[in-house]
Amino acid sequence: MLDEARLRDRPRALDPSRAWARIADPMAKVERTVDAILDAGDEFLYEASAHLLRSGGKRLRPALHLLSAEACGADPAGEPAVPMAAALECIHMATLVHDDVIDGAEERRGRPTVHRKWGAHTGVIVGDYLFARAFAILADVAGRRVLRLMSAVVFEMAQGEMAEQRSLYDLDQTKEQYFERVRQKTAAFIAECCRLAAVMAGAGRAVEDALWRYGMGVGMGYQIVDDLLDFTADPQALGKPVAKDLRSGVLTLPVLHALSLPELGPRFRRLLEETAWGQAEMESIVECLAEADAIRFSYDLARRYAEEGREGLAALPPGPARDALDALALALVEREF
Amino acid sequence: MLDEARLRDRPRALDPSRAWARIADPMAKVERTVDAILDAGDEFLYEASAHLLRSGGKRLRPALHLLSAEACGADPAGEPAVPMAAALECIHMATLVHDDVIDGAEERRGRPTVHRKWGAHTGVIVGDYLFARAFAILADVAGRRVLRLMSAVVFEMAQGEMAEQRSLYDLDQTKEQYFERVRQKTAAFIAECCRLAAVMAGAGRAVEDALWRYGMGVGMGYQIVDDLLDFTADPQALGKPVAKDLRSGVLTLPVLHALSLPELGPRFRRLLEETAWGQAEMESIVECLAEADAIRFSYDLARRYAEEGREGLAALPPGPARDALDALALALVEREF
Repeated sequence: MLDEARLRDRPRALDPSRAWARIADPMAKVERTVDAILDAGDEFLYEASAHLLRSGGKRLRPALHLLSAEACGADPAGEPAVPMAAALECIHMATLVHDDVIDGAEERRGRPTVHRKWGAHTGVIVGDYLFARAFAILADVAGRRVLRLMSAVVFEMAQGEMAEQRSLYDLDQTKEQYFERVRQKTAAFIAECCRLAAVMAGAGRAVEDALWRYGMGVGMGYQIVDDLLDFTADPQALGKPVAKDLRSGVLTLPVLHALSLPELGPRFRRLLEETAWGQAEMESIVECLAEADAIRFSYDLARRYAEEGREGLAALPPGPARDALDALALALVEREF
Repeated sequence: MLDEARLRDRPRALDPSRAWARIADPMAKVERTVDAILDAGDEFLYEASAHLLRSGGKRLRPALHLLSAEACGADPAGEPAVPMAAALECIHMATLVHDDVIDGAEERRGRPTVHRKWGAHTGVIVGDYLFARAFAILADVAGRRVLRLMSAVVFEMAQGEMAEQRSLYDLDQTKEQYFERVRQKTAAFIAECCRLAAVMAGAGRAVEDALWRYGMGVGMGYQIVDDLLDFTADPQALGKPVAKDLRSGVLTLPVLHALSLPELGPRFRRLLEETAWGQAEMESIVECLAEADAIRFSYDLARRYAEEGREGLAALPPGPARDALDALALALVEREF
């Protein structure tokens, strides 16, 4: 466990907006490269996948890959960083479109989802298309080890998604099971986005491990915050309705924390058992979460994961890219949308 | 166009059951290897994907890969033929499970489909899982070019599936559009299963091209017959209801042929326009197909594709593996289930 007082007092290395600004140019190239990857000769598949691309998003995975590449001494605006980052975003998009089919999601970032606009069959096919295009690019620019690692990550994500489906409405699940799902669904991929920059740059195992540790911590923290924003964020800013996860039976850290408390837990459990999921009893549920201080508990834990990730950066050569990664780590667990 | 009289008189090189018997041992290894690929540490994903594996199937794609490998002088029971064949079957399984989700199919080979048994979300995830496992094996045993070719095939299959979805109930589509869909959905993959054996064996471009041509012809013929069995096969033997494709709006060669006839076409078109798709008017539709001699027309065309594929075999060294491929080509377009 990290020393909290020490962490709190640690200065913020860089304004995160400067971290994003730092990679604005290579990121514009990544955006164009993703567009070119999607435009592979089939008009409709291009239209449907580009719809998803233009729905926006933070481009977190390519951003972390570009900064990691720069931290390893590679050119973030050149090859192989740009096509790698673009392929990583395509894989992320593939999982998004399949997740939306699975969850029956109507909107993503305020725009209709692919399967809502064109049907579930299109969602399934567009996801397969995106996987295929991404792996074609990876096979062009990377070696076997990278392809093996990426296949393993897609496997982890499928495992995590499956575990989530099987955990729906299950009030007996533990926080440990939740953390394992977050690791599989999100953190393993983000860790790989960082580590692959070291693999591509031939930076050696120590740097690979350091970037993997960084990405794992940031990825865990990022997803925990993403999950708690389900309760706290302005639905307009997030582009989806409040407590949507809970309404669909997905139990996340604030809920599991409240359930684990000796006093509140049993009462909260009865409330959830009596709740018609998906209905308006959400208000009293949110009151229970407030009583449990569950939001702050989750933010704190997310920050600890991010701090754990930041520790990995010590093994990287100092410089502006490392500083940018450092700044992003905290910014990602302090965001409010 | 091939000389039909010549083709009819050409002797059958080998009893097809001897072709299958020839690869019984390596195929048993492939079966065990697929099982091991699926068993990657997640109990549920193993159960669901193994359910699909144990639903049977002809294992056509690995069989063609093994025989092609042997025809190139490689050991069909050794590496890399066995793991390659296993990975190819996994990719085929991935497309099957996603296709079943897309079509809402209830049964496959007489057993409940994955998505019927465990829900559509499981079907989507299991397909992604199978793709990921297959590409992990390919990255282990093959080089970049193979991964690139396989990604391209998955892209083709997504294109074909999308084209099929967009062609549903469309009475204005042409036979050419149907052939293009068959090429994308089935023949491109089967052609690659054959060609990759030459790529792995380093047999050179001439042999690669010959096996690709063989697989393309066989794949076209195989799928055309598969489609017409929808009208002719015993539902018990096929494990799915009769005219299921047509009931779901999928127009295949017999229907498109009948529609294209100058006399029958307009009458058949009116019948289809007035039909409540999915209902029992199938009897008069099947009568029209008989009047158009559409089943025999389709069988003949399938056989021509297979013959076209057999021509490719001339570029391979003579021997029992080539004879087996030759025998399979015709057997696959003459099967009745």
